[in-house]
Amino acid sequence: MSEIRVTIDRLPDQREERTVTTGTTIGQLFAEVFAGDRSNIAARLRAAAAEPILVDLDRELADGDAIEPVAIDSEDGRAILRHSTAHVMAQAVQEVFPEAKLGIGPPIRDGFYYDFQVERPFTPDDLKTIEQRMQAIVKQGQRFSRRPVSDEAARQELAGEPFKLELIGLKGSGNAVSTDDGADVEVGGGELTIYDNIDAKSGELCWKDLCRGPHLPTTRNIPAFKLMRSAAAYWRGSEKNPQLQRIYGTAWESKDALKAHLDFLAEAEKRDHRKLGAELDLFSFPTEIGSGLAVFHPKGAVIRNEMEQYSRQRHVESGYEFAYTPHATKGTLFELSGHLDWYKDGMYPPMQLDDGVDYYLKPMNCPMHNLIFRSRGRSYRELPLRLFEFGTVYRYEKSGVVHGLTRARGFTQDDAHIYCTREQMSDELDSLLTFVLDLLRDYGLNDFYLELSTRDPEKSIGTDEAWAEATETLRKVALKRGLDLVDDPGGAAFYGPKISVQAKDAIGRTWQMSTIQLDFMEPGLFDLAYKGSDGADHQPVMIHRALFGSIERFFAVLLEHYAGAFPAWLAPVQVTAIPITDAHVPYLHEVAAKLRSQGIRVEVDASDDRMQKKIRNAQKAKVPFMLIAGEEDVTKGAVSFRYRDGSQNNGVPVDEAVAEIVEAVRSRRND
Amino acid sequence: MSEIRVTIDRLPDQREERTVTTGTTIGQLFAEVFAGDRSNIAARLRAAAAEPILVDLDRELADGDAIEPVAIDSEDGRAILRHSTAHVMAQAVQEVFPEAKLGIGPPIRDGFYYDFQVERPFTPDDLKTIEQRMQAIVKQGQRFSRRPVSDEAARQELAGEPFKLELIGLKGSGNAVSTDDGADVEVGGGELTIYDNIDAKSGELCWKDLCRGPHLPTTRNIPAFKLMRSAAAYWRGSEKNPQLQRIYGTAWESKDALKAHLDFLAEAEKRDHRKLGAELDLFSFPTEIGSGLAVFHPKGAVIRNEMEQYSRQRHVESGYEFAYTPHATKGTLFELSGHLDWYKDGMYPPMQLDDGVDYYLKPMNCPMHNLIFRSRGRSYRELPLRLFEFGTVYRYEKSGVVHGLTRARGFTQDDAHIYCTREQMSDELDSLLTFVLDLLRDYGLNDFYLELSTRDPEKSIGTDEAWAEATETLRKVALKRGLDLVDDPGGAAFYGPKISVQAKDAIGRTWQMSTIQLDFMEPGLFDLAYKGSDGADHQPVMIHRALFGSIERFFAVLLEHYAGAFPAWLAPVQVTAIPITDAHVPYLHEVAAKLRSQGIRVEVDASDDRMQKKIRNAQKAKVPFMLIAGEEDVTKGAVSFRYRDGSQNNGVPVDEAVAEIVEAVRSRRND
Repeated sequence: MSEIRVTIDRLPDQREERTVTTGTTIGQLFAEVFAGDRSNIAARLRAAAAEPILVDLDRELADGDAIEPVAIDSEDGRAILRHSTAHVMAQAVQEVFPEAKLGIGPPIRDGFYYDFQVERPFTPDDLKTIEQRMQAIVKQGQRFSRRPVSDEAARQELAGEPFKLELIGLKGSGNAVSTDDGADVEVGGGELTIYDNIDAKSGELCWKDLCRGPHLPTTRNIPAFKLMRSAAAYWRGSEKNPQLQRIYGTAWESKDALKAHLDFLAEAEKRDHRKLGAELDLFSFPTEIGSGLAVFHPKGAVIRNEMEQYSRQRHVESGYEFAYTPHATKGTLFELSGHLDWYKDGMYPPMQLDDGVDYYLKPMNCPMHNLIFRSRGRSYRELPLRLFEFGTVYRYEKSGVVHGLTRARGFTQDDAHIYCTREQMSDELDSLLTFVLDLLRDYGLNDFYLELSTRDPEKSIGTDEAWAEATETLRKVALKRGLDLVDDPGGAAFYGPKISVQAKDAIGRTWQMSTIQLDFMEPGLFDLAYKGSDGADHQPVMIHRALFGSIERFFAVLLEHYAGAFPAWLAPVQVTAIPITDAHVPYLHEVAAKLRSQGIRVEVDASDDRMQKKIRNAQKAKVPFMLIAGEEDVTKGAVSFRYRDGSQNNGVPVDEAVAEIVEAVRSRRND
Repeated sequence: MSEIRVTIDRLPDQREERTVTTGTTIGQLFAEVFAGDRSNIAARLRAAAAEPILVDLDRELADGDAIEPVAIDSEDGRAILRHSTAHVMAQAVQEVFPEAKLGIGPPIRDGFYYDFQVERPFTPDDLKTIEQRMQAIVKQGQRFSRRPVSDEAARQELAGEPFKLELIGLKGSGNAVSTDDGADVEVGGGELTIYDNIDAKSGELCWKDLCRGPHLPTTRNIPAFKLMRSAAAYWRGSEKNPQLQRIYGTAWESKDALKAHLDFLAEAEKRDHRKLGAELDLFSFPTEIGSGLAVFHPKGAVIRNEMEQYSRQRHVESGYEFAYTPHATKGTLFELSGHLDWYKDGMYPPMQLDDGVDYYLKPMNCPMHNLIFRSRGRSYRELPLRLFEFGTVYRYEKSGVVHGLTRARGFTQDDAHIYCTREQMSDELDSLLTFVLDLLRDYGLNDFYLELSTRDPEKSIGTDEAWAEATETLRKVALKRGLDLVDDPGGAAFYGPKISVQAKDAIGRTWQMSTIQLDFMEPGLFDLAYKGSDGADHQPVMIHRALFGSIERFFAVLLEHYAGAFPAWLAPVQVTAIPITDAHVPYLHEVAAKLRSQGIRVEVDASDDRMQKKIRNAQKAKVPFMLIAGEEDVTKGAVSFRYRDGSQNNGVPVDEAVAEIVEAVRSRRND
């Protein structure tokens, strides 16, 4: 038996060389190095001069391998766990429904799915049966075993799986190959492999799947899982293909982690803005109007208006000028801007006016702002010129992806375009990023990281040099913040790279908020120019930026972040005044008048309900402050001051209560 | 000679019976009754049991005729004067261009036109030549002489005038007949007549035209006229017909009246909002975007935003709730509302989404507000419910009628719909009309009359009873104001009668501003209901109302009303600070900072221009206040305070100047 030398990362910064005998698997080495620790379920392998790849623990080590353990509670570890659980689910489905044909089954964010061709959709009872079967498979401890195969062999083995055959077929056609995880692999980028599930005791083959892997050592390594729901899905995402049935599930490194996730989902569901929007009478999506087009009801309109007013005020203070532009325009404009070349699929279809002229709803505001810039001569003295608009745009989202206010077909951007010189660009971006983060904090978000989206060479215009310069400028500005900066390769729009601010909400979810996008391209397309101090014409740099992104979406984020309990300055009703009996109504109308004269939104509940019911109603409506008054209060000129958390101060003098409320609103305190 | 008895109105309230011999003309009677007064150029004749008609003075009186003089400076008199002048122009054109064929030539507001088929458009020199020829015809004193003709005779006489023949032809087809004044006459409603122009001395026929009349006695009765311009126009207004050349002219009862009119036009041209909009950099209509779709530049956006903010504030104070609704919707909504039946021609064409669903841009907001009303159960306690929105609508105006901001294809209404009980309706309309007039006054308009638009039976839905009740309610409320109330028969929208507020601007032009429209129909179409105090369901009454009408149009009206010199609260730049030399710039920046901290829009002109040029620039930009500072001012902490009218107070302490400006802006003084 010969010996080989390998390297292992014991800890992130603790690398160690080891000598092992040929034939030793990674799992065996780990068992020795991390004695007793069973949390590593795969490895990251860096073979000589190759990119690192994730591999199974039963892989044999080769001389010169460098390996790093992958723990089940790491990001990669969870993906492997979920991928293996998807296999277990598919096995269970085929045991329960032997006629079921396999689609694909990748891990996804927080879970996994697998698609099946079956005769009828799965019922909730089916899911229970499948889950029980899965428990049995997990207990059985089936080994995941990797086996490279030729195309021909794979075709024979999977003759009964038409969708898998189609995937193998794609390889021959020069296309990419999709394996069960749904990821397309470039031909030549990897060999075709099958994973066998093998009973640990009998060595019997229980199930198999065409799959790139890697997988857990055995099904026993699945600590906790749950099937969530099923839904229809088209094969390979196209409506022209057969409809399959998809089962979603989740899997976690421990029962506690699963429970935490399920609790989180329950909390997220309680906060679902579509649900809260209806409960609090904030907005609706009437079927007569159509998908993705929101109608804001009076209470929602108050919040939205407050959001806009404060944003407008901050923009005025920060040197922005305002514009109003129409929602429809001749196609000419979008030919000029390139949108009809690069963005037509995202636009509504044209309307033909005046015997043959195509008009479009605008998907973006920038081309119109460019027309304002060039409506007259511009001097360097006017730069930076910051043009702001609450601009409503229309984008033709597929009806399947439309989702409440967060993915709509019509929405209003807090959109600005900044025109500046190249010399001003870096400082402008810098102060802009400060402005953005400050403004988001004012609305109550304060946990951020930044993302830098770079060029997709297939879908972009402009020179390499311009992209490189723009990207580097953005990176420098972003790094100065001291916030985490994550790369998003290929994620930029066709005209330039961007920074986006990712904000975490009250339950830890990340939302993409503000975007700041550099654009060296459009100023050229529109022949934008300013007279420099040298008397010559120069092309300005253009920055696209939206802080809320869309007002509708930001509204939804805040609604979920606050679970409907908006801070006082945003709350549609800020104070509900509740009389102990009808006799105290006139007194509370006087109190209400005092508040109203200070601009406070107050309601006196003079309905027939009893006091306790009124308090419950105000709590359900998430009103920040209740002022309750009875006989003693009337005599003393006082109120009982009750907060949203149920705490209450009695006998508070009216003027004190008014002052406290006015202060809470004016200060825009976000508690 | 037998005698006949006639009645004549010597003065409006002084009727007199007269006996005249048979064969006496109206003109002869007038000469006797109004000895020496030649201002009456036609008469209003009430023959036995017939509707009054306008007739020529050379008409012979019949027994029982009641006549009333028509003075040349009355509304009817001016129309006859202009109609006769149109004849004189047509005669002159045919003398100068013998090949010219006649179209129609009616009097219009403030003037007249006549259409001609000619080989080439008229040049300004042509107009001069025609005008000179007209002067000669006027001097010659040709008599206008009426002559009834049969169709056949008319065809023979006008064999060389193809367009006139077409008009005669229409009679036979059962259509209405158009005579030269362009008015369609119902067949049987009048005989066909030709007017001959006859030389007073020689008795020779100089010219003739197919015409209903009446006309002036002779061309000498034309005191003052002027040709204004020429333009292309399609025969009978249809693009499918031949293109003719139209000459516009005006005629007045005196040279002074003509001069006053021309001065008015010059003033109106100076105030033309399209011209001022460009000069003051307020808005534009970029060709890339298309007809009737305005882009507001930063300075225009400031004004518009101030207009909106103040309107919003007043609406909040007056108990309105707000809404936001999308600009596009499925056709379903407009089928429900009836717009696709009654208003389709005014709508943009549909966009087909989601494999075959027609979406439309909204031409009106009401259907969407109805959806908000019915999004949940409503109680009588919530009424009146007043839903307000700055709602942008799109209407497919013919490109020929689009005119700047006053007739646009996309515009934003300050639109509200009020839902109330029948019992509340009258009070609600009453307080609404007060609110409307007060708000218009706040923007600087204060000379009003009201117009009541009633049903067009051909184009409306709903029962006679509902229309009658709605119309009477509006009339009562309108009459209470003590303002003039003018009827507009058939002018209502298809769903209900309306009051409109007509406002006079600074140079006396009338603009239709606010509309208040009652609607008993739409609530039924949308099944709107509220729970009454009796526990049963009732249908609310709906009031449509827009105060500005459209923000764009109101913007244009104010721009023309103020000739661009907006009151301080609306002015885009409220203060320009002007240093006598560069040394005083830092001092003025301090002054500017004080103003800015109070929300004042101030600019320090630190350009290279000389002081006098800076003052002229601020005057041209119509900035309300200039603060000028030199050495002495810096020493004393003072400024020279200069007003838009050129007056100036020197040595005003800065705090005083700031206080004065802040007060002018906060008070929204419209001077």
